[in-house]
Amino acid sequence: MNDFSKKSPSDNSRREKIAINGAGPVGALLAVMLAKKGYQVDLFESRPDSRKTNIYQGKSINLALSDRGWKALNAVGLDDEIRQQAIPMYCRVMHDIEGNITKQPYGTEEQAIWSVSRSGINEQLIDLAEQEPQVNVHFDHRLVQLNFADNTAVYLNENHHQKIHESDLVFGADGAFSKVRRLMQELPKERISYSLDYMQQSYMELSIAANEDGSHKLEKNALHIWPRKDFMLIALPNIDGSFTCTLFLNHEGELSFASLNTKAKVTAFFHQYFAEAMQYLADPVEDFLSKTPSPLCLVHIYPWLVNDSIALIGDAAHAMVPFYGQGMNCGFEDCRILSELVEKHEHQWADILAAYQDERKENGDAIIELAKRNFVEMSDLAGDERFLLRKKIEAKFHKMHPDLWIPLYAMVTFSPNIPYKTALRVGDIQQKIMDEIMLMPNIEDHWQQDHVYEKLYHLAKEMLVHQLSEVQR
Amino acid sequence: MNDFSKKSPSDNSRREKIAINGAGPVGALLAVMLAKKGYQVDLFESRPDSRKTNIYQGKSINLALSDRGWKALNAVGLDDEIRQQAIPMYCRVMHDIEGNITKQPYGTEEQAIWSVSRSGINEQLIDLAEQEPQVNVHFDHRLVQLNFADNTAVYLNENHHQKIHESDLVFGADGAFSKVRRLMQELPKERISYSLDYMQQSYMELSIAANEDGSHKLEKNALHIWPRKDFMLIALPNIDGSFTCTLFLNHEGELSFASLNTKAKVTAFFHQYFAEAMQYLADPVEDFLSKTPSPLCLVHIYPWLVNDSIALIGDAAHAMVPFYGQGMNCGFEDCRILSELVEKHEHQWADILAAYQDERKENGDAIIELAKRNFVEMSDLAGDERFLLRKKIEAKFHKMHPDLWIPLYAMVTFSPNIPYKTALRVGDIQQKIMDEIMLMPNIEDHWQQDHVYEKLYHLAKEMLVHQLSEVQR
Repeated sequence: MNDFSKKSPSDNSRREKIAINGAGPVGALLAVMLAKKGYQVDLFESRPDSRKTNIYQGKSINLALSDRGWKALNAVGLDDEIRQQAIPMYCRVMHDIEGNITKQPYGTEEQAIWSVSRSGINEQLIDLAEQEPQVNVHFDHRLVQLNFADNTAVYLNENHHQKIHESDLVFGADGAFSKVRRLMQELPKERISYSLDYMQQSYMELSIAANEDGSHKLEKNALHIWPRKDFMLIALPNIDGSFTCTLFLNHEGELSFASLNTKAKVTAFFHQYFAEAMQYLADPVEDFLSKTPSPLCLVHIYPWLVNDSIALIGDAAHAMVPFYGQGMNCGFEDCRILSELVEKHEHQWADILAAYQDERKENGDAIIELAKRNFVEMSDLAGDERFLLRKKIEAKFHKMHPDLWIPLYAMVTFSPNIPYKTALRVGDIQQKIMDEIMLMPNIEDHWQQDHVYEKLYHLAKEMLVHQLSEVQR
Repeated sequence: MNDFSKKSPSDNSRREKIAINGAGPVGALLAVMLAKKGYQVDLFESRPDSRKTNIYQGKSINLALSDRGWKALNAVGLDDEIRQQAIPMYCRVMHDIEGNITKQPYGTEEQAIWSVSRSGINEQLIDLAEQEPQVNVHFDHRLVQLNFADNTAVYLNENHHQKIHESDLVFGADGAFSKVRRLMQELPKERISYSLDYMQQSYMELSIAANEDGSHKLEKNALHIWPRKDFMLIALPNIDGSFTCTLFLNHEGELSFASLNTKAKVTAFFHQYFAEAMQYLADPVEDFLSKTPSPLCLVHIYPWLVNDSIALIGDAAHAMVPFYGQGMNCGFEDCRILSELVEKHEHQWADILAAYQDERKENGDAIIELAKRNFVEMSDLAGDERFLLRKKIEAKFHKMHPDLWIPLYAMVTFSPNIPYKTALRVGDIQQKIMDEIMLMPNIEDHWQQDHVYEKLYHLAKEMLVHQLSEVQR
């Protein structure tokens, strides 16, 4: 398939040939970015082209695109195009067990996270990648082997024919169960530390259909949550008027996907815990009984690189749980930072990749940790009076001192200049400070009074100022 | 190779056929134990029989056998036989950089850890397994496949012939890089969480030869340590008068196996840091330059079981670093507990294995953690005045109140009735208490005075008593 010869040492102007494995959103965006830097890119995908075959079979995963994602898309001018298919969600709408509804804005009035369909944004990005003359997209190419001595890859195509592809640089953008990563791990001398952790919850997709006139059955510009402590249901809007819902529930145990094993039990479960949502959900009991729950896992790996020329990116390097809505945003940020490093290190790939790993590994670990913790916030604390009071105090203080105090959610979601690792560290200090504030006598009655914010200011100055010099990078 | 039929439901008296993969010390001991419970056991080993072929090629790993190991060996009457080839080590002998020597007893006068050669104890245990009529040992059988539906295993023998073996129960006692474990991990529905972590240190074996008259060049009944903070050398005695030494050193970095890459650098390194040991070491510079350092890793996995009939044991379930001398002891304890559970659950294997996993998983995690922490104690603190003072205060207090305070090292090493997880928890509380004691003014002068032990008694009563009810199980 490829008969070009390897880079000759005398030809310094020749740009490396790059193979990207995995044409998901991260792989496709990376292809566009590297092509725009002047590289020839081959983008390989094991599955067929979803634009021609319906491979999603009714699966309609939704993702929340936020400022880190937008910043990366903006860097290559793709943000306007993607925004046309996205719905801004300005708040969480919490549905309690009695059917009462409360709203929690995500940030200021104009701040939102954006609901996009995974397949939709993926197809848009592949369209955009194909418009780049230097990108070749190869569907139905399943990676079976990588020769690490010369970066030759072997693929099996849809007819089970073997194809050999040579390149100078190889990226594994092939997701949480990355084949590139598995092949790296088989190398005996690389000392690759690795962990795969299953969460006790699994998830299942359900849906809410559009009204007959195509309008939304629930408030459109919101992320809906039915928090039930150990489990929860969420719903994200689609542009066709429907909502994609996800039920997060223990995989095994007393109340779990495993224990809800008859129609009667499942029906009782939905009526007991989601009576209000039952008005909107399309056949949740049928869906529940016919679908298999999907696992939630975390992946840590280090190093992300071998031979200065093969690197992991996106979920392949740092798969996380979806509770902070940051998986794709983090992958897009990986691409943006890598692309900036290409310029900074003047196309010297050993330096680029070392700096990329150095910059991104700690940030990947930080957002994996933040996402794991956020299950509790979404499924339990989000319905808790004292927790909501904390958020109100933080929001008020943020307005008073916007540089001194940015709430953790806003650092992660709306502040792409604050690295995840800084958000994690500062968030932990903020938590200690707020623990102290919440111990003030009768805080629930006095929370609007000046002395609360004087104390908060004093504590923040004392404990946060050193951190902030790093935040403003 | 096996044509017996599967257990028939009507034949309740028939004992399950058991296959154990890995004829290391743990696999061999497990075979003996299960044979003694009335089971037919096939013990498979991928390597040839070391008693007939010298497969160790001069490698002479030494292990420290301590009370947990002895208790397991004693349960099947093997302790006396093994003790004949073991050397008791009653103390640590610390060699500082100036060549000064200090001794730290491990416990009371009669308490010791025992130096055994890994290959020696392994061969002794295989001899003993072969003496059991119900054990068949199969060398040169490399496991290549496990059919989890019916517990059929496929082996390749030394002539690359395929052999198929059926059994009712399968154990993976095949070490840190367990093949049984890897085959389990490929099962898509088992939700197996897993981590493999490389430590920053690697290790290399060196040696001290015997004197010409066969006597030891250093004190025989001791474990020798040359602690140098970020790295260290240790030596364990052999019955032939030699010592097996191990150098633990960073794999990469400023002073590391990677950076010491010339004869001049290695020679300077040994003369600078191990001038005294150089009198005894046999060609350390040659050894260093000709050998490849071995990695140190930790393995966590959960579950340890699939299908109520395939289970991991020993390093396959919980590989740890060697700094507490507990790897083999923990594996032997796994065997003893499992064997006790066979009786307790009356040969009902689904119950036995569930109880085994439940009992051992937390203890495996605890000793992995303790072993990791102990590098700092061996390589740094063991040469620190204030640390030694802590140990002296603890030892004195232990003599005064032997039930209220057992030092952590003694809980792990000499107290097989205290589970590792309890030792870890109690040890953490002891550390907090001792931190407070060490803050007492002029403790280095007053440490023998009564008021120190009154305070210690008060703190221990307050913080440890609830823990102790669990210790005495």
